[in-house]
Amino acid sequence: MKKRYIMSPGPVEVPPSVLSVGGLPMIHHRTPEYRKALSEVTEGLKYVFQTKNDILIFPSAGTGGMESAVINMCSPGDKVLVAACGQFGERWAKIAEAFDIIPVKVFAEWGNEVDYTKVEAELKANPDIKAVFTTLSETSTGIENDIKKLGGIVKGTKAVFVVDAVSGMGAVEFKTDEWSVDVVVVGAQKGMMIPPGVAMVSLSEKAKAALALSKTPKYYFSYVEALKALKKDKLPDTPYTSSVSLILQLRESIRLIKEEGLENVWARHSKIATAVRAGVSALGLKPFAKGKPSNSVTSIWAPEGIDGDAVNKKIRDEYGITMAGGQGKMKGKMFRIGHLGYVDRFDAVIGISAVEMALTEMGVKIELGKGVKAVEEELLRK
Amino acid sequence: MKKRYIMSPGPVEVPPSVLSVGGLPMIHHRTPEYRKALSEVTEGLKYVFQTKNDILIFPSAGTGGMESAVINMCSPGDKVLVAACGQFGERWAKIAEAFDIIPVKVFAEWGNEVDYTKVEAELKANPDIKAVFTTLSETSTGIENDIKKLGGIVKGTKAVFVVDAVSGMGAVEFKTDEWSVDVVVVGAQKGMMIPPGVAMVSLSEKAKAALALSKTPKYYFSYVEALKALKKDKLPDTPYTSSVSLILQLRESIRLIKEEGLENVWARHSKIATAVRAGVSALGLKPFAKGKPSNSVTSIWAPEGIDGDAVNKKIRDEYGITMAGGQGKMKGKMFRIGHLGYVDRFDAVIGISAVEMALTEMGVKIELGKGVKAVEEELLRK
Repeated sequence: MKKRYIMSPGPVEVPPSVLSVGGLPMIHHRTPEYRKALSEVTEGLKYVFQTKNDILIFPSAGTGGMESAVINMCSPGDKVLVAACGQFGERWAKIAEAFDIIPVKVFAEWGNEVDYTKVEAELKANPDIKAVFTTLSETSTGIENDIKKLGGIVKGTKAVFVVDAVSGMGAVEFKTDEWSVDVVVVGAQKGMMIPPGVAMVSLSEKAKAALALSKTPKYYFSYVEALKALKKDKLPDTPYTSSVSLILQLRESIRLIKEEGLENVWARHSKIATAVRAGVSALGLKPFAKGKPSNSVTSIWAPEGIDGDAVNKKIRDEYGITMAGGQGKMKGKMFRIGHLGYVDRFDAVIGISAVEMALTEMGVKIELGKGVKAVEEELLRK
Repeated sequence: MKKRYIMSPGPVEVPPSVLSVGGLPMIHHRTPEYRKALSEVTEGLKYVFQTKNDILIFPSAGTGGMESAVINMCSPGDKVLVAACGQFGERWAKIAEAFDIIPVKVFAEWGNEVDYTKVEAELKANPDIKAVFTTLSETSTGIENDIKKLGGIVKGTKAVFVVDAVSGMGAVEFKTDEWSVDVVVVGAQKGMMIPPGVAMVSLSEKAKAALALSKTPKYYFSYVEALKALKKDKLPDTPYTSSVSLILQLRESIRLIKEEGLENVWARHSKIATAVRAGVSALGLKPFAKGKPSNSVTSIWAPEGIDGDAVNKKIRDEYGITMAGGQGKMKGKMFRIGHLGYVDRFDAVIGISAVEMALTEMGVKIELGKGVKAVEEELLRK
């Protein structure tokens, strides 16, 4: 008998009450009953996103949601700015290039935050930039970007501001309207705490104006069609079949977030993340983040002579905890502890305890219990 | 206390054992455990599709699966043939046009099968046609097309043969390889009996050759990337996050199909569909299908002076059964009884009984029990 834990930066563990909804009988997506549920979900998401904007939901992975933003906001030949600091930020540029959209690449060194100064300079130098794409929580490096600052920079330009909040929404502070974010893309399996398979997108009025100009060919991900369906009646609808089970699970997870209160959810993530980081420091391990560390995932350099993937594999296969290794060019060089969604204090304890035991077994000189002590101290700090 | 039934042509009722998998804890999609499950699913789907071809799975509605076939098989400016006989067949042409691909529209009158003779003639007249798109079971009209015959026609040409089997696969006879179907697109929530949210696509060698020539811009739905991930290791993987809960449910539903045996599944659907049609006839109602009626859905003209949507609404809101109304230009003129997936003999009894009672309540002269009698007689026929 081995207990299983997920401490990856997504998919995350799904809360029991959300899981149980996944086992309920199907209902048809074109019925008033379902459309009422969809209405509760789109309204509830406005609270989580902190927005008055319309929110569209597509059966898709988060990457499909990112693609949808590119193809609905831009046209072939458009110049856009991609402010990246890791694997997922850089993906914006790959998607743009796939659709003949030209990215001005403001790529920071991995481990840093986005280069805000350079973003501002490039926007001034290129007033024809149609959109700025960036990432809230860069999962590959464990960095949280200052979206408020970027929003302030982009606001005064003609560009729409698009944020991949896939792995931050519902975990770290995010204020769509106050921070002037025009398009927010969110996934299911992170802070929203449901199984993967739906992407959510919010659209400001500025985004809708850009949408009207977009000439990129599209069908399935057309925001025009999705907005039509959303608005066509008293209750929202979707152009194509909605992900019934995931949407009903999302309704329950939003209920949990509302019940706890969004500020409390953010504070909980901050507390647990701070505790994990304290544990990492106490063990003398080197955090990968040089910029502001994300409250959803902590990235740690593998100790000298140790393969990061081996740490990850040992913890998964022997201890039953799925964490994450390094991505892209960081493969083998780091391991990552996810702490977002359905997490509480003992996840920090378990995560650091696993690292202590695994590294000890792998021959790294670690004082057993020292990391956990630091975690507990941080958890007890008022 | 009102029992609820789904007798729509999708989403269908999900079998209890498949539902229960929907309530199980999450597992991470990059683990050997999950990839083994994905491997069982892709192998199991080969049995259901009756193919040796590779099968790709995308988090998406069925329409996204259709789009993926268009954008991966064709390039802007290509000429294609769309052999349609209803709403879903005609959608192929809309998708093609959205991507600047030029459809030769061979549209049959709704209620008929696809015009095979005209397809053959157009293919002869237009040897530059790159792909032929059609529909196995046209859900909007309740027609089943002769895919075997079409496969024979397309086989000798340079065109790839693409079939929307979204609402037929796992319900009606379908033999991908024997019938020379190059690309098969299937949805989750029909014969595959899981909640909506994933699209499956099989690719022949001829399809892979067409893929290599495709210049339509794409990213999320790229078959090249999906094939790379499928083949990169001993176990299949996906380029972006997989729909974990739905894939695990799919594994269970495939197990159920294997346990019953595919030929028995087809025979069961045929038996129930025949019984439903016998009930419709006995009540003096007019079937909409003039061509071969589909074994997954029966479409019925609303009686003189009766709104088809009102029949549907009454049966849903008062009796608890979700059937379907008319789609597109048939809205209000018909109602449809779905009988695919998790259906057995008493679904035929209940469906026809509901129609008898609803039409009687609506003032139509119906002899109560006459339809059900015909259903029972048909069910008892050896």
